[in-house]
Amino acid sequence: MNKIKASVIGASGYGGAEAVRLLATHPHVEVVHVTAETHQGQVMSKLYPNLRGFVDQTMIAVDAERIGHDSDVTFVSLPSGKAMHLVPALLEQGCKVIDIAADFRLRDAALYPEWYKFAHVAPEYLGEAVYGLPELHRDAIGTTRLLANPGCYPAASLLALLPLVRSGAVRSEGIVIDAKSGVSGAGRGGGGGFGFAEMNENVQAYSVPRHNHIAEIEQELSHLAKTAVQVVFTPHLIPMTRGILATVYAPLAQDLSEDEALRLYETTYHDAPFVRVLRESFPQTKATMGSNYCDVTVRIDTRTRTAIAIAAIDNLGRGAAGQAIQNMNLMFQFPETAGLLFPAVFP
Amino acid sequence: MNKIKASVIGASGYGGAEAVRLLATHPHVEVVHVTAETHQGQVMSKLYPNLRGFVDQTMIAVDAERIGHDSDVTFVSLPSGKAMHLVPALLEQGCKVIDIAADFRLRDAALYPEWYKFAHVAPEYLGEAVYGLPELHRDAIGTTRLLANPGCYPAASLLALLPLVRSGAVRSEGIVIDAKSGVSGAGRGGGGGFGFAEMNENVQAYSVPRHNHIAEIEQELSHLAKTAVQVVFTPHLIPMTRGILATVYAPLAQDLSEDEALRLYETTYHDAPFVRVLRESFPQTKATMGSNYCDVTVRIDTRTRTAIAIAAIDNLGRGAAGQAIQNMNLMFQFPETAGLLFPAVFP
Amino acid sequence: MNKIKASVIGASGYGGAEAVRLLATHPHVEVVHVTAETHQGQVMSKLYPNLRGFVDQTMIAVDAERIGHDSDVTFVSLPSGKAMHLVPALLEQGCKVIDIAADFRLRDAALYPEWYKFAHVAPEYLGEAVYGLPELHRDAIGTTRLLANPGCYPAASLLALLPLVRSGAVRSEGIVIDAKSGVSGAGRGGGGGFGFAEMNENVQAYSVPRHNHIAEIEQELSHLAKTAVQVVFTPHLIPMTRGILATVYAPLAQDLSEDEALRLYETTYHDAPFVRVLRESFPQTKATMGSNYCDVTVRIDTRTRTAIAIAAIDNLGRGAAGQAIQNMNLMFQFPETAGLLFPAVFP
Amino acid sequence: MNKIKASVIGASGYGGAEAVRLLATHPHVEVVHVTAETHQGQVMSKLYPNLRGFVDQTMIAVDAERIGHDSDVTFVSLPSGKAMHLVPALLEQGCKVIDIAADFRLRDAALYPEWYKFAHVAPEYLGEAVYGLPELHRDAIGTTRLLANPGCYPAASLLALLPLVRSGAVRSEGIVIDAKSGVSGAGRGGGGGFGFAEMNENVQAYSVPRHNHIAEIEQELSHLAKTAVQVVFTPHLIPMTRGILATVYAPLAQDLSEDEALRLYETTYHDAPFVRVLRESFPQTKATMGSNYCDVTVRIDTRTRTAIAIAAIDNLGRGAAGQAIQNMNLMFQFPETAGLLFPAVFP
Repeated sequence: MNKIKASVIGASGYGGAEAVRLLATHPHVEVVHVTAETHQGQVMSKLYPNLRGFVDQTMIAVDAERIGHDSDVTFVSLPSGKAMHLVPALLEQGCKVIDIAADFRLRDAALYPEWYKFAHVAPEYLGEAVYGLPELHRDAIGTTRLLANPGCYPAASLLALLPLVRSGAVRSEGIVIDAKSGVSGAGRGGGGGFGFAEMNENVQAYSVPRHNHIAEIEQELSHLAKTAVQVVFTPHLIPMTRGILATVYAPLAQDLSEDEALRLYETTYHDAPFVRVLRESFPQTKATMGSNYCDVTVRIDTRTRTAIAIAAIDNLGRGAAGQAIQNMNLMFQFPETAGLLFPAVFP
Repeated sequence: MNKIKASVIGASGYGGAEAVRLLATHPHVEVVHVTAETHQGQVMSKLYPNLRGFVDQTMIAVDAERIGHDSDVTFVSLPSGKAMHLVPALLEQGCKVIDIAADFRLRDAALYPEWYKFAHVAPEYLGEAVYGLPELHRDAIGTTRLLANPGCYPAASLLALLPLVRSGAVRSEGIVIDAKSGVSGAGRGGGGGFGFAEMNENVQAYSVPRHNHIAEIEQELSHLAKTAVQVVFTPHLIPMTRGILATVYAPLAQDLSEDEALRLYETTYHDAPFVRVLRESFPQTKATMGSNYCDVTVRIDTRTRTAIAIAAIDNLGRGAAGQAIQNMNLMFQFPETAGLLFPAVFP
Repeated sequence: MNKIKASVIGASGYGGAEAVRLLATHPHVEVVHVTAETHQGQVMSKLYPNLRGFVDQTMIAVDAERIGHDSDVTFVSLPSGKAMHLVPALLEQGCKVIDIAADFRLRDAALYPEWYKFAHVAPEYLGEAVYGLPELHRDAIGTTRLLANPGCYPAASLLALLPLVRSGAVRSEGIVIDAKSGVSGAGRGGGGGFGFAEMNENVQAYSVPRHNHIAEIEQELSHLAKTAVQVVFTPHLIPMTRGILATVYAPLAQDLSEDEALRLYETTYHDAPFVRVLRESFPQTKATMGSNYCDVTVRIDTRTRTAIAIAAIDNLGRGAAGQAIQNMNLMFQFPETAGLLFPAVFP
Repeated sequence: MNKIKASVIGASGYGGAEAVRLLATHPHVEVVHVTAETHQGQVMSKLYPNLRGFVDQTMIAVDAERIGHDSDVTFVSLPSGKAMHLVPALLEQGCKVIDIAADFRLRDAALYPEWYKFAHVAPEYLGEAVYGLPELHRDAIGTTRLLANPGCYPAASLLALLPLVRSGAVRSEGIVIDAKSGVSGAGRGGGGGFGFAEMNENVQAYSVPRHNHIAEIEQELSHLAKTAVQVVFTPHLIPMTRGILATVYAPLAQDLSEDEALRLYETTYHDAPFVRVLRESFPQTKATMGSNYCDVTVRIDTRTRTAIAIAAIDNLGRGAAGQAIQNMNLMFQFPETAGLLFPAVFP
């Protein structure tokens, strides 16, 4: 099979670098360009010593036209609000785009000023962008040229809630999502405020009560429930590098036994190659580290009539780059699991 | 001032050893006996090298009569279900008792089989035992001879919820407590299942949906609300040694602005020497490590009409031994802060 | 290409489980049997949740004859002193053996009582066993049926020292090896003494001054130097799960500039697919985590005429299972890098 | 007893903040001024939430004259090369000075350009400055007005080596010091390059082979040995916040049994209140965390005729601020242990 040509804009960040890592061993892909801003001109493997011998290319400055011309697909992994300036030029060159940030996740342009504090400059593309959670939009993903890769928290939260919300088993209000993230979620640029000495042996919440990932979580849950869904969402930083654990609390709308709930999850994810439903144990982030897997379970608290669903992912894997590669596979009709079929590193 | 004589039963465990550490520098206390089971006959500072030069006593076997006779107060820090066999003999010797485990926390003996899987052997003492959260029961603590020290999760959860529940600002149902604990909460004996290699870079929930700390949380909240309160409670183990962060979600019963909520907390805890209300920042466990402080704040999510309260403690400090010393101070009319007035180690 | 059949004895330990993880995605291997003692009868992926969907086999009891009969190669990953009881039976069945423990690493049977406190029961096999460090014994590895996989510390230490010792650039006495290991090196069974609460935020030396890995380090260095070499070796446990960093100090025997030293390393490892010589930066364990790479560098302290060589590996990768797979590749004439050509997980 | 007035210049850094933490509960001290550069105008406890309720002063800009006038003693905790510009003005005001950085540690001004890359601007003070390791210079400390507080690595290294070098038991060449430090040693300003995501689950050496702490180590060892001593010194960053473990290798100059060596240590440190000699176990940093203790031991490798000495400290305690307070106690004729007599936090 001929290899497609892929580029990564923002390869010096953790999400971009993880995409490069996965592309470097992908059987159907050749990496063409990698870009960086501050670190442009540097060899990629100097910043990411794990890539030494795999990706020793020099990181170049962003040139959307050239990159779009040279690539079949470009991953854009920049802080939110930057990709929207580049995507039109990339698409114009016939290059498919996978945006790892938030610029094309929300269908309603009016939500950007509200949640992200910027006005969208390319709202005409929001209609065609597909939200890249395969368990929700597999078919649409297969035919789009513009893929909005889910946020790390939404990926875990939606996979935890999907079976309950789609089936109508839980109420559309009163849902609480409590998420715990590794520090790499703050990004490489975030190093300054996230020094080891103070993050270690520490845990704290942040962005309470209005983290911007709420917007896409509610958009997709409302789509699933066919009614407006609002959630409380609180993210926490815990002292680990990778991983997100989302613990979700949803008031039951009807009687549902634990066994029925588990069967609902097993049925829902029967054909999802990267979702594993746990029946007897609880998801742990370490079981997903470095991989594209999401481990999920559900329990029923009969005393309070609450479903408690828990999902674990690697925030840089299923929560960013791994998911992006899975979406690329679908967009190019590769096997969905190509380049991703390996277990997490454990312990 | 003459020093009182204090003993610690179960000094080889983390909670007991932390009590010994704090007693070792307490101005009004002399440590008389320390006991251990597996490690009896060993010098305390061999197991706890930080205590070298402070507590080089040999840990002896438990002998309730002798210890009660020799001590003004005895801290019992054993797995739940053991203290109830020792407390009557200790009290009989005229020794006051502070039980760091759960044996005397629940007023209703019938709750023990339900939540702790054992029948209580000394139910006649449940009536006189006082639940040792000073912010709730300061006066009763001052006159009791039998003190039930709160669990680590309940300490954080109750301090987070107290102002909201007592004031009636939140509803009595729909409360969700999501707690994150350091691994020392699993105890020293827990080492086997809590090896570094698998706990590190990992997070997971456990005891879902029925952790036994729910019983005392609901007992005290119901007492505060003057109506039955039920909660959903999910504990998680995160990769740190010490600390609990409790994030609490409570549906508002009435309109309440964030400023009003914060003022409610500031008023409630105005005279509490070990509760610090944060207005502009979020509690972090590291700011309490090694100390008896509880840092707490509250935010209002107006979109979903939910109060989000967050409390941080050291699980071995405010969540166990520090709290126990504070209670001892009150029981013996020492200054409430004696031996505890030092800041956390940070970073 | 037909797949060979591989079994892993001791699959419940960290070294064995890592071998299973790597074999699960190896293109030329089918996993036949996995064994465990305490956990026999359990599904492998229950203990190692990362393997769910990859290796859901039940771990069986050890039966050397059956396993040897059914397998082309068997990895034995048991505490030292156990493999020597099984290897003869395995070999007799025509099965090649890769021992991940120490039973066949020392050529001189008399060293076992001295360093390992047991007498060898199968000394007649020590002569044909090959010490599996490809950079030292590549040819012999290709033809042996009994492979002694190097210890984790020796793997890092020998790769750090090899160019210096073989070239005669350093003296044969006065060599000091200071090694820092992640806690997984203590093994899964080691959980009890290696609980998170006390290993976290801590570092300490152990087995000073006589760790049993000294024996094989001196054996191989003496072989390289063609004269008896003795080393001081001190291992330390540091608060991480995976990784070994060996910092080696060797007094120069002759003038050697830093550039000459680096060139010596580059030449020595020119054809070694899993050794990367760093010229401008220092090896860090994270750059090797989950992989089979060894990163190495050397500096010259001209003031004291000392060469300082540093090597980083994943103790479960290049220090155990990864190395074992590389050796298997050589023993079966597969490409040396088969199943191992992927970068570390970073960050 | 009247309290003396103390100020801390550079209170926003980790070393300065630790001095403030210790001064806040010191029985004979009142904190007058705390200064910061970037964070001037901020309340101290905003940056260091552990100090909330203890030190809620605003950090001011540096004004040496005013601070010197208002204070009996000033701790200067700035990057090396800054204190020398302030110290003359402080001393002129009759204020004693404790410099936590390196500006007055080296007696020979010519060493500053060589090791610190700056020319000293106040070399006339180097003669009167006393190197503040009480075990070496207790008497001189008691009478000086200018105290040079030892570096973190030298504190551990010198306490490990002192008995061996002073007694002549080891040779003056061939000494190797391999040190492992927690990340707080890189300082608060160092956050940018020391983000959690990359420091966690990682270890690496740095400043090989010429870390600037070598200069003071050799100065003091040469003073002890009464002959020039050179050392190889390699620092490493390991994934913990606090703590330094120094493992020291010294070739024996004469026969010395392990018991003799241990007795030598016990004798040497008999009257040192903050040095604990371990006979049966190995020093671990966690046993010193948050405290001023140094735990030390020695072993003899008879095979190679090498003494292996190991010392553990808290790099911010005995390695910086704790040591500084101990020196202040001596300078003001307070009990040497005033304000420091509490055990480490463990686990």
